[in-house]
Amino acid sequence: MRLRDVGEFGLIERIAGAIARSGGSQTAMRQVVVGTGDDAAVLRPPRGHHVLISTDALVEGVHFRWRTQSPRIVGERALLVALSDLSAMGARPLACTVALAAPPSLELSRALGMARGLGAVARRAECPLVGGNVTRAPVTSLTVTVLGSAPRGRFLSRSAARPGDGLFVTGELGAAGLALGRSERRGKRLSRLPPLRLQAGLGLAGLPSRGACIDISDGLLADLGHLLQASGVGAELAVASVPTPTGFFGACRRLGLDPVRTALTAGEDYELLFTLRPGGPSPRALGRRLGVTVTQIGRITRRPGLRLQGDAKRHAVGASAKGFEHF
Amino acid sequence: MRLRDVGEFGLIERIAGAIARSGGSQTAMRQVVVGTGDDAAVLRPPRGHHVLISTDALVEGVHFRWRTQSPRIVGERALLVALSDLSAMGARPLACTVALAAPPSLELSRALGMARGLGAVARRAECPLVGGNVTRAPVTSLTVTVLGSAPRGRFLSRSAARPGDGLFVTGELGAAGLALGRSERRGKRLSRLPPLRLQAGLGLAGLPSRGACIDISDGLLADLGHLLQASGVGAELAVASVPTPTGFFGACRRLGLDPVRTALTAGEDYELLFTLRPGGPSPRALGRRLGVTVTQIGRITRRPGLRLQGDAKRHAVGASAKGFEHF
Repeated sequence: MRLRDVGEFGLIERIAGAIARSGGSQTAMRQVVVGTGDDAAVLRPPRGHHVLISTDALVEGVHFRWRTQSPRIVGERALLVALSDLSAMGARPLACTVALAAPPSLELSRALGMARGLGAVARRAECPLVGGNVTRAPVTSLTVTVLGSAPRGRFLSRSAARPGDGLFVTGELGAAGLALGRSERRGKRLSRLPPLRLQAGLGLAGLPSRGACIDISDGLLADLGHLLQASGVGAELAVASVPTPTGFFGACRRLGLDPVRTALTAGEDYELLFTLRPGGPSPRALGRRLGVTVTQIGRITRRPGLRLQGDAKRHAVGASAKGFEHF
Repeated sequence: MRLRDVGEFGLIERIAGAIARSGGSQTAMRQVVVGTGDDAAVLRPPRGHHVLISTDALVEGVHFRWRTQSPRIVGERALLVALSDLSAMGARPLACTVALAAPPSLELSRALGMARGLGAVARRAECPLVGGNVTRAPVTSLTVTVLGSAPRGRFLSRSAARPGDGLFVTGELGAAGLALGRSERRGKRLSRLPPLRLQAGLGLAGLPSRGACIDISDGLLADLGHLLQASGVGAELAVASVPTPTGFFGACRRLGLDPVRTALTAGEDYELLFTLRPGGPSPRALGRRLGVTVTQIGRITRRPGLRLQGDAKRHAVGASAKGFEHF
């Protein structure tokens, strides 16, 4: 059965059903006054909170391919990527909407698989799906908008780094680039999902020593560049201290990938890159608090620009420091 | 010059510049704490207000064609269509985001034309553009998400109609269907834009006699059907009282269009369809208050279903009462 067989309103009904069955509709709904089914959803943000908004899109043939990714993974990924922006701001999810564009020939099972993936993440992140849009288009795409909330004045931004701050990262880098390499060179299915770092972002926003924060979507060097530019500062990065998964170097070499280059420039790891004023908790203590390992990888300097300490030049990292551009 | 010649970040910079020059950045920004340039925008809704959200998409080849629509009209239209959902809820705009998907071969002037159109409407509606996303895709599309605010408990919905309510419409119906007919049959450029009915929606939400409200995007009969279903009521519609523009009947006949069918089933007029409890203001007095003509076209009944009074059957309206479906 294909989308054209059920029609627009039939599709919306079935998507709502798939999300309900995946638990998405059991998400904490106390902040939802009116959900799907009206011209707009109506939300009740916590008293005295700011409201945050971010939009992301996944497009077939650009961000995913049916040959290598299951519909469920695509749906999960679409919401996880959007939620990563809320994590980086230290915000709590409030609600999300999704715009699905797809050809009438798309198999209904694929649309419902994506809906189930979205619903599962919506439940896990307590981010109820409150509306959306469906339309015809030549290829499938999911555009997700997430709303979040944060107590006034207590959110993170890219622009708050100061000279003397330590530079840190959550988790490990390079796994997404390695998975992509395996998919492209060995035809393996892509099943790796971005991590959910909402608790880490909330924890960072609550620290008196908090500095700047950004999520690593374009690659460590590119996103560090964005953070430095927004804050008007520079940084020294200790290349050897960048945390990578166990067995990462060997696995990269077997695929013909440069491991340092992969860890520093491959995007889509969706870990948090952040700075802290001196005198804050140790990475170990902070990691316990945030629920994820924390590693110091450098420090912020008054002198502008990024200086790599270690063997980065050998890995031809400089040329691709700009990360992924879409056009 | 094409998108591929400026790159993703170059495009984002130029779009921001085009929006600034069109006045979009001079929009009342008092509710914007952090605008574009961070991982998410941060907004300050008015104290004690609910937050409303709605998403709409315009896709090349489905909702617009470059042959018949200027880039500026496409940009204006994308935001006006999304704002129409806020009007129907009686909400005030808070901010908007836009996700642009486009092929690398798209002319930069088209992308910037759309941005200028968006910026002009953002300024007129006091709805600042606070973020978005750009991505590669096989065809161009704009997905707009609008945020609004409304005092707690003082918003409109589709589901509030009661038996005995009068049934009303703002403005005139059929002009969008006529313009589409002219474009399809005579090759004329489509330059008609959806009206901005924010003041009308706010006025309706403030009436003690307020009932239900929906915007007419799919056609009068289809959207009336949605309102009746959501409210669990029926209606009698006086077909002859549906307001149409001067010269509408003649213009339709010259194009071979059935005028009654066009007024009742062609979508995209984006006027407000609403109900009022008995004893409220007269249509004339209400029209002065809302800043747009108001016409009574029927009444809500306990008996379910829609009964057309007049010559609707002659115009084969029944078969297309479902309006436009996307698949």
